[in-house]
Amino acid sequence: MSYPSALPLSQVRFDHGFLAGRARLVRETVIPGQWDALNDRIPGAERSGCVHNLQVAAGEKTGEFHGLFWQDSDLAKWIEAASYRLATHPDPTLDAELDRLIATITRAQREDGYLNTYFQLVEPQNRWANLRDCHELYVAGHLIEAGVAHFQATGKRTLLDVVGKLADLVARTFGSGPGQIPGYCGHEEIELALVKLARATGEQRYLALAEYFITQRGQSPNYFETEAKVRGEKGKLPWHMHHDGLATLQAACPVAELKEPVGHAVRMMYLLAAMLDLAQEKNDPVLREQGRDLWQATVARHLYVTGGVGSEPYGEKFCEPFDLPPDRAYAETCAAIGVVLCARRMLEHELDGAHADVMERALYNNVLAGLALAGRTYFYVNPLEVVPAVAKRRFECHLVKTQRVPWFGCACCPPNVARLFASLGAYAYAQLTDGLAVHLYAGGDVSFTVGSVPVQLRVTTEYPWKERVEFTVEAAAAVEFTLHLRLPGWCRTPHLEVNDRPVRPDVNRGYARVRRTWQRGDKVTLDLPMPVERVHADARVAAAAGQVALQRGPIVYCVEQADNGAQLSALSLPRSSPLKAHFAPDLLGGCVIIEGQALRTGSGDKLYTTEPAPVASVALCAVPYALWANRGEGEMRVWLRES
Amino acid sequence: MSYPSALPLSQVRFDHGFLAGRARLVRETVIPGQWDALNDRIPGAERSGCVHNLQVAAGEKTGEFHGLFWQDSDLAKWIEAASYRLATHPDPTLDAELDRLIATITRAQREDGYLNTYFQLVEPQNRWANLRDCHELYVAGHLIEAGVAHFQATGKRTLLDVVGKLADLVARTFGSGPGQIPGYCGHEEIELALVKLARATGEQRYLALAEYFITQRGQSPNYFETEAKVRGEKGKLPWHMHHDGLATLQAACPVAELKEPVGHAVRMMYLLAAMLDLAQEKNDPVLREQGRDLWQATVARHLYVTGGVGSEPYGEKFCEPFDLPPDRAYAETCAAIGVVLCARRMLEHELDGAHADVMERALYNNVLAGLALAGRTYFYVNPLEVVPAVAKRRFECHLVKTQRVPWFGCACCPPNVARLFASLGAYAYAQLTDGLAVHLYAGGDVSFTVGSVPVQLRVTTEYPWKERVEFTVEAAAAVEFTLHLRLPGWCRTPHLEVNDRPVRPDVNRGYARVRRTWQRGDKVTLDLPMPVERVHADARVAAAAGQVALQRGPIVYCVEQADNGAQLSALSLPRSSPLKAHFAPDLLGGCVIIEGQALRTGSGDKLYTTEPAPVASVALCAVPYALWANRGEGEMRVWLRES
Repeated sequence: MSYPSALPLSQVRFDHGFLAGRARLVRETVIPGQWDALNDRIPGAERSGCVHNLQVAAGEKTGEFHGLFWQDSDLAKWIEAASYRLATHPDPTLDAELDRLIATITRAQREDGYLNTYFQLVEPQNRWANLRDCHELYVAGHLIEAGVAHFQATGKRTLLDVVGKLADLVARTFGSGPGQIPGYCGHEEIELALVKLARATGEQRYLALAEYFITQRGQSPNYFETEAKVRGEKGKLPWHMHHDGLATLQAACPVAELKEPVGHAVRMMYLLAAMLDLAQEKNDPVLREQGRDLWQATVARHLYVTGGVGSEPYGEKFCEPFDLPPDRAYAETCAAIGVVLCARRMLEHELDGAHADVMERALYNNVLAGLALAGRTYFYVNPLEVVPAVAKRRFECHLVKTQRVPWFGCACCPPNVARLFASLGAYAYAQLTDGLAVHLYAGGDVSFTVGSVPVQLRVTTEYPWKERVEFTVEAAAAVEFTLHLRLPGWCRTPHLEVNDRPVRPDVNRGYARVRRTWQRGDKVTLDLPMPVERVHADARVAAAAGQVALQRGPIVYCVEQADNGAQLSALSLPRSSPLKAHFAPDLLGGCVIIEGQALRTGSGDKLYTTEPAPVASVALCAVPYALWANRGEGEMRVWLRES
Repeated sequence: MSYPSALPLSQVRFDHGFLAGRARLVRETVIPGQWDALNDRIPGAERSGCVHNLQVAAGEKTGEFHGLFWQDSDLAKWIEAASYRLATHPDPTLDAELDRLIATITRAQREDGYLNTYFQLVEPQNRWANLRDCHELYVAGHLIEAGVAHFQATGKRTLLDVVGKLADLVARTFGSGPGQIPGYCGHEEIELALVKLARATGEQRYLALAEYFITQRGQSPNYFETEAKVRGEKGKLPWHMHHDGLATLQAACPVAELKEPVGHAVRMMYLLAAMLDLAQEKNDPVLREQGRDLWQATVARHLYVTGGVGSEPYGEKFCEPFDLPPDRAYAETCAAIGVVLCARRMLEHELDGAHADVMERALYNNVLAGLALAGRTYFYVNPLEVVPAVAKRRFECHLVKTQRVPWFGCACCPPNVARLFASLGAYAYAQLTDGLAVHLYAGGDVSFTVGSVPVQLRVTTEYPWKERVEFTVEAAAAVEFTLHLRLPGWCRTPHLEVNDRPVRPDVNRGYARVRRTWQRGDKVTLDLPMPVERVHADARVAAAAGQVALQRGPIVYCVEQADNGAQLSALSLPRSSPLKAHFAPDLLGGCVIIEGQALRTGSGDKLYTTEPAPVASVALCAVPYALWANRGEGEMRVWLRES
């Protein structure tokens, strides 16, 4: 292989520390719980209908389709997550459950390869008739990802064959040839899935199809306009396309002309991920450069401090550069996952710690916020400031939930979190030709090879709560390789020791390169001092002017009503106020909290006055943003006014 | 009369200074220009169709109805404005134009008194069938106000008879008697109009009808629910009723149970105005108290510093207490006019300067902002912060115009501004049993009576640009009376002289009472020092935390891109920064501007950083908020961060 690539999941094990805890939660609680949700077995939750729909389509039961056009994709993402779990933690019961489910899927698939329970059960006559709105290829993409994951986890071709047949149908159906549809999906996803399928099967035609979908997108005449005419559609575009029109779907111009992320945030991120994949597979310098530029535009002008993207709730979209209001942050969990997907691909293009910094920011903050501590409820929208009464009241916040919920009518986020956390190993490490890159620090083991020599590395750490990460080489024989250890951008004074002797590493683009002939038992100690930092946004971020976010290591903090009382906007943090971090073992599952003195402005009896209000000194307690809303409903805010 | 009451408009003349200038603009430019708009003679403006609709309904021409259910009300408000103009500035041409228009109205009226061109031309079968949404009684109310104004201005009963016939139809149709409709209008207006009609005609039955509409509102069974069932309506309420349901229309509970302003802001203010009128007419202490409480709740928790109300754009509504975001301020021009209407009624209940302070705040800031300096374009929505690219982009700002426009599809605001400014005299002064109250200071003359003795008072002032107001008594004979001069709440050190000798007046609730036997030529000089003030909002106003608004006298200021460059959010105002005001004769028609030194935070190359950004000292120039957006499109903001 010519570029840094993820290791097979079976070669990575997380067994202690924070990320391992979250991964275990996903394995033991989230994935089984979501299976219940998909089977409509959670009282009080919004109905999924996923398994029901599939069984009806397979002829195993009778009934009506429930849900949205893309309902199948929830199940597909869950299968992907469950497959990753099988890869790291073999489990005959789950394996058998998946086999049964895949058998049903196989029965549901039409002879020609078509598979989409909505269109099979509700609108069979409208297959491929509305690519703009109906997500058929998106659903196919998620099924393909599931098929690849299941194959890689189990070696079984059952689902892979199903999705191969589906992909072949798509390949026959779409393209510029006679009788083919010159279209593409309103919601990108199949593009990156097809690259995965090409990689898993070695079939280059899937790559060509991905390339077709990407390059055909936004070409003139615009396919979405053409098909709308064919449908006889008149009048307005769907509401979510307000203001942006076809740019909502990244289809107002050819993809090659995109210079700024536009439109629906998840779609944009999935498109970018696919562009980066394609650039990699084709070794295309122009596409690579464009992908990098789009990525840089995203992180330089559109990223919340929590790592989320999408600041226009009405349509779940990118907004103007630097327009990042905290209360109206959409910052969909899926979009932050998209950021993680793109960051990993950027790291495959160039081993630059800046990309890992963004990945870590998104993962530890926005993505993790999507999942409750107890692993049974979820956020879809992740604002950086919530006043419950206001969020429930204002229309622009009407999609904000002030508490996580067990399921959603549109439940894209929960299984997306599950598949990401079930495959964390693919984000933490990359196999390089000269050794191993470590992007994320988490306690466990990783196995990789140097030439043909297997190496095992043990990682011991309580990161991100503690500053130390220890690596112990457990190679069978002395072997020379380079350990590329990420030095996080937030860390000013990293300190490295090899076998207890300080070394000044060769640092390149945020990675310390430690090359030597390693012996079994060699130990590397990386200290990443984590003082509490006050993070300022660029002055162009109007919503954060005069304010700071607290950050320690990769963790972005927030203040909650539970610790600081209501009306958090009345708090300000003096520039001179010292802030201390300490581990609170009994709080929120055990986490580092930040404490200090703040000022609280008092209220008087006049709405407007020329008299400055009285100000009192009060204790401030900040908790990790990702852990907010685990103690009942209350206010929360990330940005704190400096005084 | 037992309470302070407005003087006939003919007894008040404004002839110099700021308000006189605005009143002249309305007289000479706005009212004729709106007549053009109502006749669809303004190229590029949204079509009104008002006169057209009326002519079609009158059988004078053929054609289709154009516009909304309530289109007639624009014309009605214009007739009211034009009538006020006739009252103060007799004009045979306008008089004749009105006569012709009223003749058409008379022809359009149905035999039974019904008058509403939409229902006559489009849905004759649905008369009174949807009071919740269709504004039939609202339109009737505006016609009644027009009829009363025309009668009072001209002494002609032509339009008064038409609206009397209409009101009689309404009285026959609505009520709790057999065959009557126990309903009321979704948009309040007819209630206060009926009180006006009762006062103008002495017919108490109109007062009883107003009372019926007010007390029946929100009673159970809810009429809007009943009529919706009759219509066979299923499914959701109209979008603008989101979250609040019937409270959008102040109809979720009986009016007597309202404790906080709710729902659509204009409707709420018009309801409150009617409640205060009714309390006055009935001398009802319970209703008076409730009206006062609602008023106090409005100004204590829901008022923008510019005097506007309504901070939820989606449905033009009141929001949570203290939730007053500047960028999402709806602050409809009509709603601020509603504040003025209620303030004047509060002043009739109790001569308390606090009410006049609110009236002045709304009038000089939010209301005036609704009208361009040139008098030909209007704002409907009046945010306190605009970044044009963001306002055009974000859905919650989609009703914000970044520049005033010549007309609106829903054009309630322009003629509302016209009728208010054409009747300013009724807001500036009140006749008391013991003399005269002066609420607003504007250059001109006022005639009133003491017993049967006519008195004329000359007011000389360049208020609000200059601090001095001079009154000269031009009575025919020596007469004893009290001059109640408002000492504005924003003024810390008012200074009063009578005949050039300082006096310490008897001050009661914000009014200086100067009682003496006045001689012709007696002079009162009132100095109202107007230093630049920094106004703080209560700490519960999250959106203004750590910020100040600049105010001088009654004028609230803003910074504009034209003077301060783009990205106004990067500006902050040091607490220690001195601010100076001076009159700029060539700017925005001549106004006092505020200048000082501010800080501007610079931008770097990182979206987030732990390094505080560089800050530069820059000149700050603030202009009256009401005059913003008269120099092309650009950013604007009222609240400035203090540093």
